Amino acid sequence: MDYGSRLAAVQTAMQERDIALTFLPRAANLFYLTGIRRQLDHGTDHNAYGDWLSGGYIGQDGPVQVVAPRMGGGFWQHEAEGKSWVSGVRLIMEPEAPVDVLKEMLSRHGLASGKHRIAVDERTWAQFTIAASSLFPDLEIVNAAEIIAPMRMIKTQDELDAMQRGSDLTDDVFRNVMAFMKPGMTEFDVAHEIDYQFVKLGAEYTSFETGVFFIQAEPAGGEKTVRSGERELRHGDSIMFDFGGVIDGYASDFGRSAFVGEPSAEYLRAHDAIITSQADAMAAMVAGQCTASQANAIARKVISDAGFDDGFNHRLGHGIGVTVHEPPFLDGVDQIVLQENMVFTVEPSIWYPGRFGNRIEDMVVVTNDGGKPMSKIERKLFIVE
Amino acid sequence: MDYGSRLAAVQTAMQERDIALTFLPRAANLFYLTGIRRQLDHGTDHNAYGDWLSGGYIGQDGPVQVVAPRMGGGFWQHEAEGKSWVSGVRLIMEPEAPVDVLKEMLSRHGLASGKHRIAVDERTWAQFTIAASSLFPDLEIVNAAEIIAPMRMIKTQDELDAMQRGSDLTDDVFRNVMAFMKPGMTEFDVAHEIDYQFVKLGAEYTSFETGVFFIQAEPAGGEKTVRSGERELRHGDSIMFDFGGVIDGYASDFGRSAFVGEPSAEYLRAHDAIITSQADAMAAMVAGQCTASQANAIARKVISDAGFDDGFNHRLGHGIGVTVHEPPFLDGVDQIVLQENMVFTVEPSIWYPGRFGNRIEDMVVVTNDGGKPMSKIERKLFIVE
Repeated sequence: MDYGSRLAAVQTAMQERDIALTFLPRAANLFYLTGIRRQLDHGTDHNAYGDWLSGGYIGQDGPVQVVAPRMGGGFWQHEAEGKSWVSGVRLIMEPEAPVDVLKEMLSRHGLASGKHRIAVDERTWAQFTIAASSLFPDLEIVNAAEIIAPMRMIKTQDELDAMQRGSDLTDDVFRNVMAFMKPGMTEFDVAHEIDYQFVKLGAEYTSFETGVFFIQAEPAGGEKTVRSGERELRHGDSIMFDFGGVIDGYASDFGRSAFVGEPSAEYLRAHDAIITSQADAMAAMVAGQCTASQANAIARKVISDAGFDDGFNHRLGHGIGVTVHEPPFLDGVDQIVLQENMVFTVEPSIWYPGRFGNRIEDMVVVTNDGGKPMSKIERKLFIVE
Repeated sequence: MDYGSRLAAVQTAMQERDIALTFLPRAANLFYLTGIRRQLDHGTDHNAYGDWLSGGYIGQDGPVQVVAPRMGGGFWQHEAEGKSWVSGVRLIMEPEAPVDVLKEMLSRHGLASGKHRIAVDERTWAQFTIAASSLFPDLEIVNAAEIIAPMRMIKTQDELDAMQRGSDLTDDVFRNVMAFMKPGMTEFDVAHEIDYQFVKLGAEYTSFETGVFFIQAEPAGGEKTVRSGERELRHGDSIMFDFGGVIDGYASDFGRSAFVGEPSAEYLRAHDAIITSQADAMAAMVAGQCTASQANAIARKVISDAGFDDGFNHRLGHGIGVTVHEPPFLDGVDQIVLQENMVFTVEPSIWYPGRFGNRIEDMVVVTNDGGKPMSKIERKLFIVE
């Protein structure tokens, strides 16, 4: 990836907008601009000494200065190594006060006197913005997403290549899991196997919490409000998969449906509507010819015409790249015109808890010939015997 | 848990400090005050429509108003059900602009005119503080941790009971995993089994990324900077465990060490130093008689006296409760006097990458008789044959 160009583009935008400093915590935007990997935030809060101000500090020119807690600082130093666009890692050494380190960093960028503007990642801790405003009350703080989000929307060829590798690996996970499944297993057993397969096959971790849903013709489970659970797979169940991994720093997201035994006519009708809905949306996703909300409307119409409108309770899809959900969004609101090499999930679903569920999901690249799916897995109903 | 009392205490503090509104995103503080569970943030960013302003809005009196994205809103509605201290869930319905919902929420608390103060969770998105300040430029924003963190430090009896259940379940995980281990397995295989055992035995999820470290007498692995990996367990390896789960909303955190085969005299000497270091610190942790940094210093001295000072590269421990790491911290900085029913991890380690590693970790309750460990697992070196 050409991190130098990405950084230069951000710094040019900062000059144009009179932004003296951009702060990005260890998250997606910092990874996108520098290649410094995120650490998996897993479970509950960690709270290392000074972690609220740790991240990359980007001036209007020059390399990125990284600040990190001493504890765990080895990870940051390792990630910064060999990157000419990163000037080094400034560790927060107890007992120095973290707020003094923030003051030092802000002062380096000339913020100590006068009115200045800084940009921060939208997920920066409020503790950072509170401390910065308290140190320098005249500081104006703006959202760095205004600069970086539009850059992330259009994928370069090496990003598309990474995402194709991620899609291929995800296909392999699906093949292995379909071979693994049998009646009697729980949703959690299957989800856990998917997680295992991802890492074994080379993913860093899963892109989001793996979804495996057994929909049983009785009020056993309820809505998709909790994680994949203890329902056991039985004859007559429909199954929905929703999973992805992080491969070379890029997220994948994938879905198919399966049925245990012989599906009903109604289920097959729902499945056909799902397949047609996705196909019609993909056909419409021609670069420059379709908005995000139009793609969403086209897919919804198929499902609505088939009489399953009340079973489709979410947006059609979302941009995907270094994070699983990122702008633009294929929803009823986003009016952006689709452009070449944007990548979206296209994921219609029909779900009636306690009755049945069917979904499909592909990562789809916008081209001048419409949306092209990355997955090589057939778009069909799978049968578990 | 007596959520009503916790909420009342926060509201009293808000009145005293002239804080008109406290905003808490779906995270530890909101769970602590209301019992509304967190969702596992797993993998990469999600970005639902309006999620940056979703969470609990707490005025100076009355119940908590919850705001949530429509997509996934069922989880919030389920969590709010039957809680008299929550007034309901206000869903963000596309196409309404999220910023308008924020304006509505802030206006309800009389913030639309005049100078006002609000408190926010320290991990609130900067997008929230930027938007709030932009809507109402006279708003003063302070850190809600100043009110809530001191409350969370002292555990009530029902919290101690929940944490004891968590400790007991964690003990069971360790027993099962020791029975499961054999040479040839990878760190990841064992870590994955631990994750599986936690959920199977009743945990919600793990408290943090499970650590299983095989330390081999050669430069195979390097520092603990990445997740548990592909090293295979061999004769002569030392093994360090570091894991925990979330049980009834409370985090556990646990560690022991093991050796494959016959340990060297040096290794046994290091192990003895670890056991003594932990025991001395626990003995000193008498309520009212010891500061956090004193406990840290006592443990360090044992390891330093044994000649392993350069192998102990982190703080002795941390407060633990609804999150795995929370104030106070047993480090070189924190001068707080330990009080009855504070709970800390006490976790000395000696680690020389490429040579050997030994650690132990217990959750320890501060009492008038010193620190009492929760785990019933022996504090000894385990041997894998």
